[in-house]
Amino acid sequence: MSEIGIGIIGGGYMGKAHAVAHAAVGAVFQTALRPRLEMVAASSPASAERYRDAFGFARAAGSWEELVDDPRVEAVIIASPPETHLAITRRAADLGKPVFCEKPLGASISDAAAMTETVEAAGVPNMIGFNYIRTPASQYARRLVAEGAIGDVTWFRGEHTEDFYADPEAPASWRTSGEANGCMGDLAPHMINAALALMGPVASVMAEIETVHTMRGSDPVTNDDQAQIMCRFVNGAMGHLFFSRVATGRKMGYIYEITGTKGAIRFNQEDQNSLWLYKAEGPEADRGFRQILIGPAHPDYEPFCLGPGHGTGYQDQIIIEARDFLESVAEGRSRWPTFRDGLAVSRIVSAARTSHENRSWAHVAGD
Amino acid sequence: MSEIGIGIIGGGYMGKAHAVAHAAVGAVFQTALRPRLEMVAASSPASAERYRDAFGFARAAGSWEELVDDPRVEAVIIASPPETHLAITRRAADLGKPVFCEKPLGASISDAAAMTETVEAAGVPNMIGFNYIRTPASQYARRLVAEGAIGDVTWFRGEHTEDFYADPEAPASWRTSGEANGCMGDLAPHMINAALALMGPVASVMAEIETVHTMRGSDPVTNDDQAQIMCRFVNGAMGHLFFSRVATGRKMGYIYEITGTKGAIRFNQEDQNSLWLYKAEGPEADRGFRQILIGPAHPDYEPFCLGPGHGTGYQDQIIIEARDFLESVAEGRSRWPTFRDGLAVSRIVSAARTSHENRSWAHVAGD
Amino acid sequence: MSEIGIGIIGGGYMGKAHAVAHAAVGAVFQTALRPRLEMVAASSPASAERYRDAFGFARAAGSWEELVDDPRVEAVIIASPPETHLAITRRAADLGKPVFCEKPLGASISDAAAMTETVEAAGVPNMIGFNYIRTPASQYARRLVAEGAIGDVTWFRGEHTEDFYADPEAPASWRTSGEANGCMGDLAPHMINAALALMGPVASVMAEIETVHTMRGSDPVTNDDQAQIMCRFVNGAMGHLFFSRVATGRKMGYIYEITGTKGAIRFNQEDQNSLWLYKAEGPEADRGFRQILIGPAHPDYEPFCLGPGHGTGYQDQIIIEARDFLESVAEGRSRWPTFRDGLAVSRIVSAARTSHENRSWAHVAGD
Amino acid sequence: MSEIGIGIIGGGYMGKAHAVAHAAVGAVFQTALRPRLEMVAASSPASAERYRDAFGFARAAGSWEELVDDPRVEAVIIASPPETHLAITRRAADLGKPVFCEKPLGASISDAAAMTETVEAAGVPNMIGFNYIRTPASQYARRLVAEGAIGDVTWFRGEHTEDFYADPEAPASWRTSGEANGCMGDLAPHMINAALALMGPVASVMAEIETVHTMRGSDPVTNDDQAQIMCRFVNGAMGHLFFSRVATGRKMGYIYEITGTKGAIRFNQEDQNSLWLYKAEGPEADRGFRQILIGPAHPDYEPFCLGPGHGTGYQDQIIIEARDFLESVAEGRSRWPTFRDGLAVSRIVSAARTSHENRSWAHVAGD
Ligand SMILES: NC(=O)C1=CN([C@@H]2O[C@H](COP(=O)(O)OP(=O)(O)OC[C@H]3O[C@@H](n4cnc5c(N)ncnc54)[C@H](O)[C@@H]3O)[C@@H](O)[C@H]2O)C=CC1
Ligand SMILES: NC(=O)C1=CN([C@@H]2O[C@H](COP(=O)(O)OP(=O)(O)OC[C@H]3O[C@@H](n4cnc5c(N)ncnc54)[C@H](O)[C@@H]3O)[C@@H](O)[C@H]2O)C=CC1
Ligand SMILES: NC(=O)C1=CN([C@@H]2O[C@H](COP(=O)(O)OP(=O)(O)OC[C@H]3O[C@@H](n4cnc5c(N)ncnc54)[C@H](O)[C@@H]3O)[C@@H](O)[C@H]2O)C=CC1
Ligand SMILES: NC(=O)C1=CN([C@@H]2O[C@H](COP(=O)(O)OP(=O)(O)OC[C@H]3O[C@@H](n4cnc5c(N)ncnc54)[C@H](O)[C@@H]3O)[C@@H](O)[C@H]2O)C=CC1
Repeated sequence: MSEIGIGIIGGGYMGKAHAVAHAAVGAVFQTALRPRLEMVAASSPASAERYRDAFGFARAAGSWEELVDDPRVEAVIIASPPETHLAITRRAADLGKPVFCEKPLGASISDAAAMTETVEAAGVPNMIGFNYIRTPASQYARRLVAEGAIGDVTWFRGEHTEDFYADPEAPASWRTSGEANGCMGDLAPHMINAALALMGPVASVMAEIETVHTMRGSDPVTNDDQAQIMCRFVNGAMGHLFFSRVATGRKMGYIYEITGTKGAIRFNQEDQNSLWLYKAEGPEADRGFRQILIGPAHPDYEPFCLGPGHGTGYQDQIIIEARDFLESVAEGRSRWPTFRDGLAVSRIVSAARTSHENRSWAHVAGD
Repeated sequence: MSEIGIGIIGGGYMGKAHAVAHAAVGAVFQTALRPRLEMVAASSPASAERYRDAFGFARAAGSWEELVDDPRVEAVIIASPPETHLAITRRAADLGKPVFCEKPLGASISDAAAMTETVEAAGVPNMIGFNYIRTPASQYARRLVAEGAIGDVTWFRGEHTEDFYADPEAPASWRTSGEANGCMGDLAPHMINAALALMGPVASVMAEIETVHTMRGSDPVTNDDQAQIMCRFVNGAMGHLFFSRVATGRKMGYIYEITGTKGAIRFNQEDQNSLWLYKAEGPEADRGFRQILIGPAHPDYEPFCLGPGHGTGYQDQIIIEARDFLESVAEGRSRWPTFRDGLAVSRIVSAARTSHENRSWAHVAGD
Repeated sequence: MSEIGIGIIGGGYMGKAHAVAHAAVGAVFQTALRPRLEMVAASSPASAERYRDAFGFARAAGSWEELVDDPRVEAVIIASPPETHLAITRRAADLGKPVFCEKPLGASISDAAAMTETVEAAGVPNMIGFNYIRTPASQYARRLVAEGAIGDVTWFRGEHTEDFYADPEAPASWRTSGEANGCMGDLAPHMINAALALMGPVASVMAEIETVHTMRGSDPVTNDDQAQIMCRFVNGAMGHLFFSRVATGRKMGYIYEITGTKGAIRFNQEDQNSLWLYKAEGPEADRGFRQILIGPAHPDYEPFCLGPGHGTGYQDQIIIEARDFLESVAEGRSRWPTFRDGLAVSRIVSAARTSHENRSWAHVAGD
Repeated sequence: MSEIGIGIIGGGYMGKAHAVAHAAVGAVFQTALRPRLEMVAASSPASAERYRDAFGFARAAGSWEELVDDPRVEAVIIASPPETHLAITRRAADLGKPVFCEKPLGASISDAAAMTETVEAAGVPNMIGFNYIRTPASQYARRLVAEGAIGDVTWFRGEHTEDFYADPEAPASWRTSGEANGCMGDLAPHMINAALALMGPVASVMAEIETVHTMRGSDPVTNDDQAQIMCRFVNGAMGHLFFSRVATGRKMGYIYEITGTKGAIRFNQEDQNSLWLYKAEGPEADRGFRQILIGPAHPDYEPFCLGPGHGTGYQDQIIIEARDFLESVAEGRSRWPTFRDGLAVSRIVSAARTSHENRSWAHVAGD
């Protein structure tokens, strides 16, 4: 067991989540590398200092550059806005430091591509922050599909819906402009990643993207509120994706339904400790979707609790993510999902935008 | 209270349902006209005789023509296959008899148009068999939306999914050929009708229609297994529809979710006695989708039971439908949903086929 | 197929339900005997006439005696208040006519015993109106338990909870006095019957019975609002029963949970078309309560609808009951549940009252 | 912000949970005192050393005595078996050190009483480990009840049911003997605590306690598998409690239902991020239990995640508990729930045992 100095850029929503995760992960998973909260950077030295104190970092950085350059920072976690992701990645890669980056990979598809190239060229371990797919339930769903438990998949429906902008009276903010801050930029990536993880690559998409509330007060909204995508997976299955930040009543609607020839799976992140499985076997009279309460029999649950049904939560996903990143660093090679996996998501977002503009099906670029 | 002679063509799934409904409706709703099960027709005189005996009709007809022509048959219910709907309608309209016709309106869009023209020209009361929209829950959902309880609607998702053809080993049958017998012809109409009833007219559609299992044994399947439609409603809202007969695990997935600026509604026919309503009002901490158990406070429930939560079932929808038809006949004018409403559904089905073939958005024809 | 003249005493909540059921049952089940709504009686000739007209009976009786005595009335259905049950039963039995009686069997345990003796001595087919146990779901639950699908039963929890008297401001009425009208008299019998049907006889009970709101306006409430019973079944299992008419939010809380060594069952009448089954078999990771949507694979569902998940409702239970009664009459012998089964329920109610008064366990009298 | 040295006795199920919690709590809650994982003790020096390494403690103790005595250990957490609780408490109290003790308070009611006396006499901050009541949902339920949101409470039903010993073939273990390890000793305390927290004190109980599987292999089982208690709260309401370790299918059935004159609440720990609330207000047609997804509007949620519906899990409860304990230590006085609250629970367990033995209602001893 040896220590590794962690530097986190950003101390907001996700900066804090990663700080907590690295504080806890060693005790939870007994990782080979034990993280040390070495340094935090933020938009100003003063806020970095506040985060240092709040989350228990050893030091605060004057700037993200200072953090990246610091010799005691051995791995970099990017939890700052998308516009900053590329530059930070470049500097870290130059120094050969492993990088973990929050989604979306960059502020644009070109940023995402550049970031991927950078880390691959530098050969540094890299990972993208798709945390929802790491719940024990979703990990198990992936395994079930991969093992053929539901047969050949014939339909996938996914959505990521929340309602934080459902109120038309809610004022404009930084969220209401900027491609990366809209629904397609901000919410879509998690579920697109899930679709890829569960179903494999997407061949083509047909999308409709829209701004439902075009004005907020006297300010125009210049990015999208919701979007839907019909898609065709490379495996031949048809699918549908829906994303919305104006979905009144939905709080964490990361939902998927997967239908196969021998069964089906349903999941809703709002009840993240249940996975619903239907198996077309046994007497007809006894068939039904079963609510599997997640427990030690499912991936990555047991370190959190020995009792089934006792449940994991949002923060625990980030702890699992931290474990994955530390293992990747310890092994010296990237683990799924890498920047390239983030880029695959960005490509679908990009194809959806093209489709929407042309009002026609769009091919999704491959590697 | 006076009697009316009912003739039903078909004694299968729906023929029986209508026979039971007309046996019960007088006692349930105390309708002005009391139906008399006068005559039943089927594909042969022998089967008509079996149905007569089984369901308690006074007489069996040698053919549907005989039934329509019979003077004691004062209103005609068509519960035979779609191919028969047009000819029966014509003959009944010629004789000035009210006609109730099962969905889909006809075997094709042109049949549907001809049927609509026929009954309108003849001025006979006419009705189409969209029963699911008549549950107390869905009637109440319509009222809530119409009264603005959920504000301006911003999203509609509907599906009608069942799994009776999910097993790839299930053999071919009459269901696996013929446009009207495929998923778009057979399953889609109910939910398209619901979309129209809840949201108003559809302006345009973008569809994907497919046959998942192209062979059953050594027989080719020549109609569709599932389909999805992105749509734009005239009111500006975006929507999505999905239909499938291969949706493993779904038994009666007549499901809709309607999102508005002030609330949202969810419904699943598999639990037809609950309507889920979210209202964006009151303290944030107390908001949530509430499961409203249907009862006497909701439309058309009380005649079935004085106790809330005691529940109505499939057959009760047909009884409500029978009440609507009898009232329409008593009043001498059509009530919603008429053949024209059935035609509106057929037009969307037709536009979806066009869209699918052209792989592009298609405009929906209006009146 | 021959006709049988049905006479119904009472045209209220249950009188109507039975009238509708007998109007429909022939078409639904193609029973050997086809009921003819011959005569209805009520508390006055005028109200009987109104019911005749409303529900489609051939004739109205001046009194229940007239109805029972009428030669064209071949079977008697008692749907009048409990106080009337014994006298009606006696007269019908004297004339050798089959009797169906609504729960509770009589106004008191002694009435119930006398009624049972009477019909048994006369040898007339007799049946008691426990309709809830006749849903396809509960019939299937009984079968599962009987066949050992959940192993040896170790725990039973049942409740029947509604909230029609939850509002403390609701005024007094006939319901707030009279033993048979209280919660133990009125609500308890259905679930006690279910407990017996699912678990077998009860050996002893320990009860707590109470009036929550002792005054309604200026009127005292002289019967009970809610009650709980701990019980020991003859098969050795422990159980608990709860009944309430003041259970705010519960509309039809006829709920049971049965735990066995190999599985468990859950049911809630508020979602009467689902049965939840857990089987302690297969990989741990795949276990969970499955929501079985009731369909043609379950008892008595198919005659109502060929499609699974399409659902039956309250009225359909009464139709099933009508079928059972007609078959019993046709066979000339009683079918479960008979008056004796109603008496068994009354004995448990009675033992619970004793237990409550003595504040100690009470033995349940057997046959 | 100053540091405090934490010593944890036990490194099993709960020892680990507390270790993780104290590693994370500072970053989550920015507590005034920042815990330092100073020392861990276990049943042997070797296992203590393993835990030290696994969870990241600074040092391992040779024995719990060594840990308690160590000057750098400033607060003691007892996560070892019940038999050890009293002796550890005495030694810690002697040294004036704050003590957190896992439930049950001691191995017996007399131990519990002695422990309470000890800490109160010594004046050391003390706390008992009832973690489930600390979920944001249950904290909010307490607040709702206290504020009268559901009116006067008329009924409480609680259960704590799991199935870890449901399989009759499961072999005997330390769990199958010893009063404190049986269902009443081990499972009951959490839900009894919840009942007290939500409803106030219990006046009297009537209990039935049993061993369902009296032999496991060739070993007798000498403690209880399940138990039920009818109770009367001091506020006048009636209640029922059920506990089982043989409840096939239940994984974390910490369930309560609270009925009041104006509303009702339902909660199931298996879906710990939902609280179900019914309010008897507004139009009848719109009433229903609403599923409130827990979020920043509820107590202690926001530090874990800014997004509602994203969810907390089992480990997060222990982090909340750690925050409570640290605040208590920082303030120098005990916070709810104290040892005295643990004793109140033990008294109910004790009264239940008396009731069961005497087969009669038992009074619950007060302070
Ligand atoms: N995986 C997930 O579930 C979520 C991911 N995210 C992603 O995490 C990233 C950060 O988002 P939030 O934490 O929500 O944002 P936030 O606004 O809460 O925090 C952003 C942080 O970045 C810092 N920052 C801004 N500019 C900086 C600069 N030039 N140098 C150094 N620090 C700078 C700010 O001081 C702040 O601490 C985004 O990419 C976002 O899409 C956000 C929320 C959830
Ligand atoms: N509203 C709903 O929920 C449902 C509607 N339907 C619709 O009801 C109609 C009938 O379908 P099902 O009852 O399922 O079919 P079915 O196959 O069960 O019964 C068809 C009946 O039509 C009779 N028939 C066939 N050709 C005839 C002819 N030339 N003359 C007289 N009778 C003839 C047959 O003898 C048979 O009794 C279709 O339009 C179907 O789409 C079907 C099922 C559910
Ligand atoms: N199985 C079930 O789900 C239910 C059973 N019941 C039972 O059904 C029975 C009737 O209850 P409801 O229908 O709710 O009562 P109700 O008050 O709605 O109707 C009672 C009927 O009995 C008639 N009646 C009263 N005294 C009479 C007399 N001396 N002679 C002839 N008719 C008389 C009245 O005119 C009225 O039509 C009761 O035993 C009750 O416990 C009631 C509701 C539900
Ligand atoms: N709050 C909750 O949700 C739960 C509470 N508990 C409670 O936590 C306590 C511990 O239970 P578990 O962690 O499940 O037990 P466990 O068997 O997993 O761990 C017990 C630990 O105590 C240590 N230990 C035993 N005797 C010792 C001694 N004489 N000196 C020092 N260490 C000793 C063992 O080495 C072991 O590390 C019990 O009081 C139990 O009731 C247990 C599980 C859940």
